[in-house]
Amino acid sequence: MSDWLDAVKWDAQGLVPAIAQDAASGEILMVAWMNREALEETARTGRGVYFSRSRHKLWRKGEESGHVQTVSEIRLDCDNDVILLKIEQLGGIACHTGRRSCFFHKLTTDDRGHADWVATEPVLKNPDEIYRR
Amino acid sequence: MSDWLDAVKWDAQGLVPAIAQDAASGEILMVAWMNREALEETARTGRGVYFSRSRHKLWRKGEESGHVQTVSEIRLDCDNDVILLKIEQLGGIACHTGRRSCFFHKLTTDDRGHADWVATEPVLKNPDEIYRR
Repeated sequence: MSDWLDAVKWDAQGLVPAIAQDAASGEILMVAWMNREALEETARTGRGVYFSRSRHKLWRKGEESGHVQTVSEIRLDCDNDVILLKIEQLGGIACHTGRRSCFFHKLTTDDRGHADWVATEPVLKNPDEIYRR
Repeated sequence: MSDWLDAVKWDAQGLVPAIAQDAASGEILMVAWMNREALEETARTGRGVYFSRSRHKLWRKGEESGHVQTVSEIRLDCDNDVILLKIEQLGGIACHTGRRSCFFHKLTTDDRGHADWVATEPVLKNPDEIYRR
């Protein structure tokens, strides 16, 4: 049965944004996109699967990096157009930059009143090491 | 100076998704959209301001409901196309349905193996009361 997949308001490209949140700490690790197939596979396998808009294909998170996501809960918002995954992030690194979370740019105002984005989270692993073949 | 606003990768409609996360509990309360003006005003005033895609105008969260958001931190992801706000939600209700969080549909599988979205969070206030004039 797939009616629960029909309840999702897919956009014109057949996609919705999906937030991956650490199930234990509540930290937001990343936001990616899902199509119908990605959401179905995520629910069926309990692994985080997205749709890569740049590569135009399913992206099984961790397929290259090993940083697989174990999904414990799937939620949908009131407008049925945003997915929330509660996950455990294997390897502790969700971001392709080697950081735990993708949300490492923090808006910061310096003592002259000038605002800018400042990178705040440590790089836990060199991306060259994560993605070496 | 507005160069930090230029760093954001606005989409073809000039928008990016913005996640509002409870600064204290880590709970994800809602996802809405921001244009450049909404993000600038949010940073300047410390209040959550979004762009309503249905009404095609700035949406100062709480302007009707009183459920204003006090913003303590603004983050941007690695791709520069998703905003994360750490907020305090006045009134404790972010969702137009009267619930604390918009993410109240939980994918649940019953004992016959049938999956469906189930509403899980309590309605704290009748929407008719929230939006009465």
